Amino acid sequence: MAWDIVADLTTEIGARLAGSPREAAARDWAVARLTLLGFKNVQVEPFTISGFVRGAETAKLTGPYPHNLHITALGNSVPTPKGGLTAEVVYFVSLDALKVAPAGSLTGKVAFIDNQMLPNQDGSGYGPYGNARRQGPAVAASKGAVTAVIRSAGTDHNRDPHTGGTNFPAGSKAIPAGAVSAPDADLIARIAATGKPMTINLVLESHPQANMPSGNVIADLPGRDPSLPPILVACHLDSWDLGTGAIDDGAGCAIVTAAALRAQQGGQPLRTIRVLWAGSEELGGFGGIAYAKAHAGEPHALAMESDFGADRVWRVDLNLAAANKPLGAKVSAALAPMGIVTGTTKAGGGTDVEPIIAAQKLAVVDLQQDGTRYFDLHHTPDDTLDKIDPAQLEQNVAAWTAVLNVVANEPGAIAGQSD
Amino acid sequence: MAWDIVADLTTEIGARLAGSPREAAARDWAVARLTLLGFKNVQVEPFTISGFVRGAETAKLTGPYPHNLHITALGNSVPTPKGGLTAEVVYFVSLDALKVAPAGSLTGKVAFIDNQMLPNQDGSGYGPYGNARRQGPAVAASKGAVTAVIRSAGTDHNRDPHTGGTNFPAGSKAIPAGAVSAPDADLIARIAATGKPMTINLVLESHPQANMPSGNVIADLPGRDPSLPPILVACHLDSWDLGTGAIDDGAGCAIVTAAALRAQQGGQPLRTIRVLWAGSEELGGFGGIAYAKAHAGEPHALAMESDFGADRVWRVDLNLAAANKPLGAKVSAALAPMGIVTGTTKAGGGTDVEPIIAAQKLAVVDLQQDGTRYFDLHHTPDDTLDKIDPAQLEQNVAAWTAVLNVVANEPGAIAGQSD
Repeated sequence: MAWDIVADLTTEIGARLAGSPREAAARDWAVARLTLLGFKNVQVEPFTISGFVRGAETAKLTGPYPHNLHITALGNSVPTPKGGLTAEVVYFVSLDALKVAPAGSLTGKVAFIDNQMLPNQDGSGYGPYGNARRQGPAVAASKGAVTAVIRSAGTDHNRDPHTGGTNFPAGSKAIPAGAVSAPDADLIARIAATGKPMTINLVLESHPQANMPSGNVIADLPGRDPSLPPILVACHLDSWDLGTGAIDDGAGCAIVTAAALRAQQGGQPLRTIRVLWAGSEELGGFGGIAYAKAHAGEPHALAMESDFGADRVWRVDLNLAAANKPLGAKVSAALAPMGIVTGTTKAGGGTDVEPIIAAQKLAVVDLQQDGTRYFDLHHTPDDTLDKIDPAQLEQNVAAWTAVLNVVANEPGAIAGQSD
Repeated sequence: MAWDIVADLTTEIGARLAGSPREAAARDWAVARLTLLGFKNVQVEPFTISGFVRGAETAKLTGPYPHNLHITALGNSVPTPKGGLTAEVVYFVSLDALKVAPAGSLTGKVAFIDNQMLPNQDGSGYGPYGNARRQGPAVAASKGAVTAVIRSAGTDHNRDPHTGGTNFPAGSKAIPAGAVSAPDADLIARIAATGKPMTINLVLESHPQANMPSGNVIADLPGRDPSLPPILVACHLDSWDLGTGAIDDGAGCAIVTAAALRAQQGGQPLRTIRVLWAGSEELGGFGGIAYAKAHAGEPHALAMESDFGADRVWRVDLNLAAANKPLGAKVSAALAPMGIVTGTTKAGGGTDVEPIIAAQKLAVVDLQQDGTRYFDLHHTPDDTLDKIDPAQLEQNVAAWTAVLNVVANEPGAIAGQSD
């Protein structure tokens, strides 16, 4: 069933950028599918976002050697001038190197930020190395750069660049910003090492757009005792537009939904399990914020999210109040036979549930997935169904079901740590 | 030195499509580099070809679900009508399935040929599965198809399609022809399996162009006895335009050139070693044909070619006259310590040397490279320098040097099999 959800979503909808008509089509698809699967109270909760419309995007190195580069605009990028721009490239080996460049030193130039990320099982490279994408363009703009180009925040060596959001905080200047593929970044680095002046021609026509329609889809599997706060399991329905959103995050929706249903097989659980297929995660976590706002008055017990691909769960992290220590032990014991270890990191949930967790001090269980391959594919055209291993997808569903069987049948109060 | 050749060629020249100004720039680069390396008689031998100019290329599935597909035109494709075309897709699981479609059954339609190729160490999938590309469009045209789209002849799962030449034999009708990436082909296959009608919008503006300039670059390392026929070692200088021609065939030029030079280190060899960096291999083997014609009057002894990437040599195949059996044994003995086995296949040489081999019944030594990864990259944007493992590149040079040390110092007559 998990496979069918992600296969059909990627085939019948495919790319579904936050705020786009395809995200709206995905909501309709989600309502129909969740209803068909027997969920109750299936609803769309609409909201509007500050979105992003992708346009033409090309990059050509024009000196010292002519090369076509593979580039994609970053979310929140503003467009290049009509007809594009040609400017000198200034090479920075890292975001830190850019940060110490003198004020005004990039006036009229293109900042290139190199930034090689290596794969780790826990995905821990994405925090530090992803900062070139998140912060680099605003930093470059502050020093006068007309455009920022970064090495993709990814671990693969394809010519497919990785998109993703960049941030222009209040007071900063928004400039066109794009990411090139790893082999293109290698080329730029090789040329930079020769000391020869480098020039680039860029056309990046993507642009922000205000007041785009988005929404969350929620659905319940009611528990035996409706007075008990529910278990919230989340994923996000939107995807970046380059791929078909298979690992990010069709797989997550497939996993949480299939596990919620499978947790009914031993009999109706005590607590309601609610699935949240959040909208507009990629462009600013708007769905999670909207959910927390819309459901501020309803107590929840525990939240979980799946948004890290479809490879196997290898570790569980917990955030439980001291009084729930026995519950945590039961969760660990349910997972240990599957070879899943209990970590020492405090569970955080993820973008779609963080706002409601913070507001209500919820308990959290994080089923950590193997991220070794994740950043080969993340935010690229290569995020397609063939990247999902059905056996690993099923292992996720089994791990999630094991956890839900414990937590959705817990009669006592469930809460997160108070600090 | 091998690394420097392929690194500099891919950085300073990059993509160098047969007949293009970049192939001309590559010839200038080659003359300068071979001269610098100490080769003698460095010459360009010009010829003209029927070439190919790439234009815009987009594909959109318009029904039953909207999807952007990643497509690239095949060499010899003609353009779609101005503004593109939209037509129904007819799915064929293989070229054989297309061949038995009734006459006229594709009138006004787009033929899609599925055609999954799996990796083999010896690259043997490329013959049969590559036929969908070589023959499929002409077969589709013969049944009325307005366009042919194939699954890329490749073994990867990226969104980067594989280009390559297709053939429209005399008497056949040339139609627009393109290849989509494997994940896009998977999507088409999934939809085809539902039986829902499928429509596609195609823009393929690439077109053939007559009388384009090309040329071979040749250079000698003279032997002690100029009266003895030379050893010819070849690669091709042109590349497809999507990548930078690192594994196909910058690596080959690097290997044969570095090995020819290294074979001088034990003292000047008896025979002249001639390197041929052939032009326009990809669009019809024009360089090899031109070389055989230009040098028809000069006897050669033995020919070798490197054109299968940069991964390690694992097998040697021979084509030697019965009288040269002892020479073959010496070649095998020189390679055995490196773990290279002697095969039972008759060595063929490759596109750039086949014409001169056929004309003069030359002896041939094929150093077979591991092709397991080759068709992940072949003819795609992913054919870039980072795909070359320096250690495996050096193993190639060592194997080639070992063979040259034997054959270039053979005093007796060298010939191929007479049949």
